[in-house]
Amino acid sequence: MPMRQITLISTGGTIEKTYDEHAGILSNRSSVVQDMLRLLRLEDTQINTLQLMQKDSLDLNDADRQRILDAVRLVVGPATDPQDDPLTDPNSCRGVIILHGTDTLCQTGEWLHQALKDQLTVPVILTGAMRPFEMKRSDALQNLNEAIFAAGLLAPGIYVVAHGNALPFPGPQKDRERGTFVES
Amino acid sequence: MPMRQITLISTGGTIEKTYDEHAGILSNRSSVVQDMLRLLRLEDTQINTLQLMQKDSLDLNDADRQRILDAVRLVVGPATDPQDDPLTDPNSCRGVIILHGTDTLCQTGEWLHQALKDQLTVPVILTGAMRPFEMKRSDALQNLNEAIFAAGLLAPGIYVVAHGNALPFPGPQKDRERGTFVES
Amino acid sequence: MPMRQITLISTGGTIEKTYDEHAGILSNRSSVVQDMLRLLRLEDTQINTLQLMQKDSLDLNDADRQRILDAVRLVVGPATDPQDDPLTDPNSCRGVIILHGTDTLCQTGEWLHQALKDQLTVPVILTGAMRPFEMKRSDALQNLNEAIFAAGLLAPGIYVVAHGNALPFPGPQKDRERGTFVES
Amino acid sequence: MPMRQITLISTGGTIEKTYDEHAGILSNRSSVVQDMLRLLRLEDTQINTLQLMQKDSLDLNDADRQRILDAVRLVVGPATDPQDDPLTDPNSCRGVIILHGTDTLCQTGEWLHQALKDQLTVPVILTGAMRPFEMKRSDALQNLNEAIFAAGLLAPGIYVVAHGNALPFPGPQKDRERGTFVES
Repeated sequence: MPMRQITLISTGGTIEKTYDEHAGILSNRSSVVQDMLRLLRLEDTQINTLQLMQKDSLDLNDADRQRILDAVRLVVGPATDPQDDPLTDPNSCRGVIILHGTDTLCQTGEWLHQALKDQLTVPVILTGAMRPFEMKRSDALQNLNEAIFAAGLLAPGIYVVAHGNALPFPGPQKDRERGTFVES
Repeated sequence: MPMRQITLISTGGTIEKTYDEHAGILSNRSSVVQDMLRLLRLEDTQINTLQLMQKDSLDLNDADRQRILDAVRLVVGPATDPQDDPLTDPNSCRGVIILHGTDTLCQTGEWLHQALKDQLTVPVILTGAMRPFEMKRSDALQNLNEAIFAAGLLAPGIYVVAHGNALPFPGPQKDRERGTFVES
Repeated sequence: MPMRQITLISTGGTIEKTYDEHAGILSNRSSVVQDMLRLLRLEDTQINTLQLMQKDSLDLNDADRQRILDAVRLVVGPATDPQDDPLTDPNSCRGVIILHGTDTLCQTGEWLHQALKDQLTVPVILTGAMRPFEMKRSDALQNLNEAIFAAGLLAPGIYVVAHGNALPFPGPQKDRERGTFVES
Repeated sequence: MPMRQITLISTGGTIEKTYDEHAGILSNRSSVVQDMLRLLRLEDTQINTLQLMQKDSLDLNDADRQRILDAVRLVVGPATDPQDDPLTDPNSCRGVIILHGTDTLCQTGEWLHQALKDQLTVPVILTGAMRPFEMKRSDALQNLNEAIFAAGLLAPGIYVVAHGNALPFPGPQKDRERGTFVES
């Protein structure tokens, strides 16, 4: 089987919050992406990781969203020389995953959808968590697992993947009551 | 969102092996399906569980495979009255998952493929694990999570889902060296 | 073997902090004592639990400390009729454990020592955690386990038990740099 | 605080059984001592580890028990030059822990008690587990934690420590029904 390549862009959010023993609080100080990936058993899959920023998603501004868009374009954009670019090889490239705080994840999803909707050849999947990965009974690893799995199956487009569902943009919204994402 | 329905048929295998403290061995004595499902956070999804048998897959015979086939037919077969049958409602039915020992999983997959290939309206997904769910660092919950997620995305057909991949039958085989499934 | 009785008084602190998914913060809202006890395998031991308060230890005032002292006195005080009181039965009573925030645990320990030093017939053990029980890699269950085990071995007195050590009051202090307790 | 030194001798047993994915069975193939120690937070404690053998305790013979006795004597024996031997320094040496299969643990305990009873200056603690460390809900880490903690508190002698109790030899027996150790 050809090796699939997935690029994982992390931006912070609850999924990556870690506990500061001195301050006694949860904050976005370092990435836990590698710790999460070590717990999954993935065959024929190479995950490239890009630590873009470490922010609570309520603190993301337009400049941050532009950086996320630029990063996605860089990863999925047309290669000048196809031989050099495994990501435009239809046998290997399986898409982009963005770890993102859930509070404004859907805003970023809409923004990416507006900017990229007709240009994508792979799925771009946003995901996050309601409980930090560092907590017991977190949904973080489940959602990352679903996002990686979905990258191999979904058609090109922008999606939020979490809690067993893949929802395409435009449309999804966070349901704060239930703590999940729903179609609008 | 309409509630999706997935039917999970368990047959035993490594994924469900539990530890007998008196005998000091792992064996298929009881199902751990409910324990696994409790650890996943699934929205708009109802999982019906059917405990069909509790066997090491090396001990499965033709009569056992016929029972598995009968169970799948029962679940996905055409309803005499569509109103009575949520599983033929295209908005709700999302397929069948079979927990199965990995050693002969592909034999069962080929058998189901031969028997059902032109009659399916939903995906039928076989999965299992290389390490029992009851062990730390098991791939059991990951594979079950992927199978449930895949049930919402895959076209009708017979598949093995594990370790980040969904492989359609006919074809897949267990790679004993690497401890995973590969396309033939 | 006669059944040992241990009384566990919980007052809050980091050890019992839980995650509020809506607010995205850790706080003392409910006790996790029963969840912790379920993970230990204790023979011939009965743990009585008393949920006294749910406070960050930086918020404890003198009235709170008086309530803790009153609770300890109630538990270890002389019974009017020895037959009625398993806690003064030398075969059954094994002491008192107090779950407490680590920041002011030693203040409470000194206070209890001053008030009770010559009257104790069982050990009174303060413990807590640097990481909440709800987080992975927490020291909470280890410290509770050590405290319960120590209750069966230590001489009457006031102690802090954590990270492999039992330190008698007066004297112990929190070492904020190292995140543990040390003899002064 | 002076650094305490504990020597941990591992002999195999259920506590160290690991899962062989190819054979599908639990066996004593490698030591998990370091994995266990990484999960504990121990201050001022140095654990020296000695991997003596890897055996199911039902397979231990007299020669194996002699090797265990020799190892304990080596660790706790009088140093020819006290300056060279931290283990005879009363401020640092805190005893010996032996990881052992539970089925014949008490036989080994009696043997060590007969051989060493009047010569010990530190506690020698046998412990094991009813469920392998590699399984979820194992009692392995709890029992090791209790053994390490007990090494700092117990008087010289031979003990079995598990499930909240410390029982001195001679006397303790395995209660197979309840899956624990009891005084005879």
